[in-house]
Amino acid sequence: MSKKGLLLVISGPSGVGKGTVCGEYLKLHPECSLSVSATTRSPREGEVDGVNYHFLTQEDFKERIAQDGFLEHAIFCENYYGTPKDAVMKMLDEGKDVILEIEVQGALQVRSHYPEGVFIFVLPPSMEELENRLRGRGTETEEVIAKRLDRAKAEFKFIEKYNYVLTNDTVENAVERLGAIVNAEKCLLSRNYSYVKDEFIK
Amino acid sequence: MSKKGLLLVISGPSGVGKGTVCGEYLKLHPECSLSVSATTRSPREGEVDGVNYHFLTQEDFKERIAQDGFLEHAIFCENYYGTPKDAVMKMLDEGKDVILEIEVQGALQVRSHYPEGVFIFVLPPSMEELENRLRGRGTETEEVIAKRLDRAKAEFKFIEKYNYVLTNDTVENAVERLGAIVNAEKCLLSRNYSYVKDEFIK
Repeated sequence: MSKKGLLLVISGPSGVGKGTVCGEYLKLHPECSLSVSATTRSPREGEVDGVNYHFLTQEDFKERIAQDGFLEHAIFCENYYGTPKDAVMKMLDEGKDVILEIEVQGALQVRSHYPEGVFIFVLPPSMEELENRLRGRGTETEEVIAKRLDRAKAEFKFIEKYNYVLTNDTVENAVERLGAIVNAEKCLLSRNYSYVKDEFIK
Repeated sequence: MSKKGLLLVISGPSGVGKGTVCGEYLKLHPECSLSVSATTRSPREGEVDGVNYHFLTQEDFKERIAQDGFLEHAIFCENYYGTPKDAVMKMLDEGKDVILEIEVQGALQVRSHYPEGVFIFVLPPSMEELENRLRGRGTETEEVIAKRLDRAKAEFKFIEKYNYVLTNDTVENAVERLGAIVNAEKCLLSRNYSYVKDEFIK
């Protein structure tokens, strides 16, 4: 069957719990890795190069952009952030699945470079529940919550670019569904056609 | 999320074990039903109308064909066999998944009537293993085995009409993969778009 790993591109609004879902999935699936982003910002205390981020100089980063070395990249607060293509491709070629947790604009860039990725949008059970979760953190002002909800609504408009919607009703259910998506994708004829052809259609 | 059941159309060569896989899946998933075929042949001893088959007269059967009442139908040994459309649609509308175990020509007919079905082709781990399994029954002559292998090779040519390939290495693995396919299909954006639009994109 298909030996190549899957690139799992996972987006979803702030507060939906996608980081928790990915984290729990990774704990259960050591064959799956999290993509490490590159950035030009300075390391914060405790951050390790190659673990939290690949820390690059602006010059290096721009050179890599010129060489088409990123699956996606963007600038936030004058710092560059990006997903190094080589590192991801190497893991996929070794048969490892790779999770890329990324916002919608980045996901669209990845899609144009790598359409065979699996694009998954994490949904809250409802808009009310998303608001509850944002409010439940108890650390944000009403203004921040309102901004995040507006941003969520803007992100939902890109949902049609995704293959799957993953409702995070409970983390356990969401992790199980993510596992089902991975296993089902590996059974797709389109991912196995050359094997099937060689073995069964001669 | 999507409330409609899935139509699981399952094909595969004689000897691959698709009946066993479907049977074990059904035991674990009471929310899923097996489609009951209609036929014009006479009931054999012990066969119950509506359980093993829906037994119809030739006249009834032909009238139902004229009314587009079958998802597929065929004639074997002068008897008609078919999948009643109404019964299947009713179960799907009630949110029940339905398994239709059927050969490739029938599956192609179903696909033209109901393209939103999930078309799954059960594969042996290898051609050698298929031959072993056919031989392992110990009840068939070499001639019958050769015929079945030729037929399997002819069936493999239709594999590109299917969405998924399901390798039956062990029944347990195959049943688990079938469950993953069902769960993943239920997360497809295309099956949930109207719900997502109503709830999140206003």
